[in-house]
Amino acid sequence: MKAFLLLAHGSRRAQSNEEVQKLADCFGIQNQDEFPIVMAGFMELAEPTISMIVDDAISAGAKHLVILPYFLAAGTHVVDDIPSLVKDSLANYPDITFEILPHIGGAKSMVNLILSVTTEQD
Amino acid sequence: MKAFLLLAHGSRRAQSNEEVQKLADCFGIQNQDEFPIVMAGFMELAEPTISMIVDDAISAGAKHLVILPYFLAAGTHVVDDIPSLVKDSLANYPDITFEILPHIGGAKSMVNLILSVTTEQD
Repeated sequence: MKAFLLLAHGSRRAQSNEEVQKLADCFGIQNQDEFPIVMAGFMELAEPTISMIVDDAISAGAKHLVILPYFLAAGTHVVDDIPSLVKDSLANYPDITFEILPHIGGAKSMVNLILSVTTEQD
Repeated sequence: MKAFLLLAHGSRRAQSNEEVQKLADCFGIQNQDEFPIVMAGFMELAEPTISMIVDDAISAGAKHLVILPYFLAAGTHVVDDIPSLVKDSLANYPDITFEILPHIGGAKSMVNLILSVTTEQD
């Protein structure tokens, strides 16, 4: 069973974290056949942490984790921190496989998404 | 003449800032009829700053600025800092109009973009 984990930075502003959680919920509802487990977690400033959702996903039966760094640019969080945090979180689970997707800002369709935001205003 | 300004956080990692700059360049190439001027700027840690690109866009002939906070969630940067920085940057330009779009993470199609990233891997 595959789990999809959305890893965001985290904010001091609760509404910001709730926004990420709602996005993950929406993604989960729309893609439950592909990803029966979908969770959002935060690198800092908010919970659940990455380690917490890795534990929770595996407890819920996940055997393979598909991890999306929900970041716009490949800064140090994406390049260094997240791979390290994921590795640490999985240290006790030798049988679980995982993949870290490119960060969302690297998506080929990001230019189109930006255009859609400008036209939603018309 | 309309200018499109992509406002990102900024990173200590030069490649991360270049990635944002390239995205803005690509958006500009694809949308030059709608937005003859397209620039990327950074809130902190990198240049050009927001104030610098506001000056540059107006010097290049922009009369209306369409500003996109290139942030995934509406944290304090989006809610407080960017409106304040934009207002300050425009203090000396009473004839220039502007609009601040919703942050990119609030785009209706973000869920679809996330799905596209998972399938690009297949």
